[in-house]
Amino acid sequence: MSLFEGLSAFPITPADASGRVDSAALAALLHRIVDAGADSIGLLGSTGAYAFLTRDERRRAVETAIATAGGRVRVIVGVGALRTDEAQALARDAKEAGADGLLLAPVSYVPLTSDEVFEHFAAVAKSGSLPLCIYNNPSTTRFTFNSALIARLATVPNIVAIKMPLPANEDFKTELADLRGTTPSEFAIGYSGDWGASSALVAGADAWYSVVGGILPAEALALARAAQAGDAAEVERLEQAFLPFWTLFKQLGSFRVMYALAALLGVGDFEPPRPVRAIPASAVPDVERALEHLRGAFK
Amino acid sequence: MSLFEGLSAFPITPADASGRVDSAALAALLHRIVDAGADSIGLLGSTGAYAFLTRDERRRAVETAIATAGGRVRVIVGVGALRTDEAQALARDAKEAGADGLLLAPVSYVPLTSDEVFEHFAAVAKSGSLPLCIYNNPSTTRFTFNSALIARLATVPNIVAIKMPLPANEDFKTELADLRGTTPSEFAIGYSGDWGASSALVAGADAWYSVVGGILPAEALALARAAQAGDAAEVERLEQAFLPFWTLFKQLGSFRVMYALAALLGVGDFEPPRPVRAIPASAVPDVERALEHLRGAFK
Repeated sequence: MSLFEGLSAFPITPADASGRVDSAALAALLHRIVDAGADSIGLLGSTGAYAFLTRDERRRAVETAIATAGGRVRVIVGVGALRTDEAQALARDAKEAGADGLLLAPVSYVPLTSDEVFEHFAAVAKSGSLPLCIYNNPSTTRFTFNSALIARLATVPNIVAIKMPLPANEDFKTELADLRGTTPSEFAIGYSGDWGASSALVAGADAWYSVVGGILPAEALALARAAQAGDAAEVERLEQAFLPFWTLFKQLGSFRVMYALAALLGVGDFEPPRPVRAIPASAVPDVERALEHLRGAFK
Repeated sequence: MSLFEGLSAFPITPADASGRVDSAALAALLHRIVDAGADSIGLLGSTGAYAFLTRDERRRAVETAIATAGGRVRVIVGVGALRTDEAQALARDAKEAGADGLLLAPVSYVPLTSDEVFEHFAAVAKSGSLPLCIYNNPSTTRFTFNSALIARLATVPNIVAIKMPLPANEDFKTELADLRGTTPSEFAIGYSGDWGASSALVAGADAWYSVVGGILPAEALALARAAQAGDAAEVERLEQAFLPFWTLFKQLGSFRVMYALAALLGVGDFEPPRPVRAIPASAVPDVERALEHLRGAFK
């Protein structure tokens, strides 16, 4: 199986109020993912708060992940940064620490042009010397990749995959056909947006980059496997089981809900990096109920 | 005159490829602003690339500005950062270095809620102990302040002003009346978006937060003063003189054009922080022509 296929589980990165990563809590989260047999770990993704952590803390998180995964699950590391030289340094750090692949978002402050994004990706892909997945996440970066730019990036050495947001019309088949038509056959196309991911896999996407998989990997893996097998009835049953989570993710932001879930599952009482705040106390019972509802489907 | 009134000139922050600020070049830019008699310096704004610079380099830039301004022009410092604790530290740094006021944008990666933005601003305003201007810049931060949040923030100690983007319909009078109706009488309301700023001043806005004023302060000041005086003919004449710049700003991004202007004016050959790139060489003659056209109006 290629690196950018199947279920990639994106854990939060537990840290204290000053942004120091709690390696033990991170390892506890990663053990859940390794034990469940997810296809990869998506470390320091948006869910992993990479944008809020220093280079040193990001390196410590990668080292923890490599040690914890122990070669049993491959580790993909988010190396996005505002400055190209910083993203290059993060890519080299990840490579040195033993990461299997990289994930790069076009983080920006000044809105970027297509040429600027192309040069940024080419520079980081070269520095990292690891397979790299384009992190196409307009809701956090505000940059939207058009198909011409994706096709151009897919010709760059080391750039071998893309993580797409859900298409507005949920028409995965058309989008996948368009992307496959302009990228090499081995170029992997996956999706994030947990509530649309099983549809993406059923439509032939290569990967699900999963937020919920970072904290409930066994359950997410069951959904991924059902979708990959084209088992429509099981997909439908599990989608119903996950539905309260999808609603909460849309209401409160999946990033915030993940911290509440980590606390409920005994990983520890961590808060998101400020200015982001924990979900309101009044919403915690909703998360508990969503968890109970999901578990009911796995009895 | 209050700190957040009149023409605030926003220079670029000249730096090398690794992000080290060139204090001498910055001082040269600041001397132009001081000599022109601008009402304030808007240091480390979006134009000043604050998001791309480390805390140490930002502190050096502030120290350079305070020394160069020498009390003749007041210095407002951008202290935006992704993390609340980092923005608080930057605010303390600015205060210690002798800044007169602060500018704070709700920089975000995870889209923020209104409550999160409120708490972020309240924390930084408290740490900074300086008059603070809300930096409302949705094109770079993706956060849009609604009037309820502005009204709430205007009650926080030290938060005394807002820098608004141009209203979509250019209806400054209605927007100003709405904002004045929900904020204290001493709360200052200014605008950025150079091509709409004279209209804003004519309509009664308190300040123009000016990109072009960072490199052509005398010319920008002439336009500001004409608008403040309600001299419609002179405003019209100078708007015609600036028009080629407004066109270039919209086409290429004012951030990029400012670096080309700095080179043409002999401040030095600096590039924007990568991934942002200089304007194409083919566009440099357009900038030269825009400069000649503007200067023609000042003969």
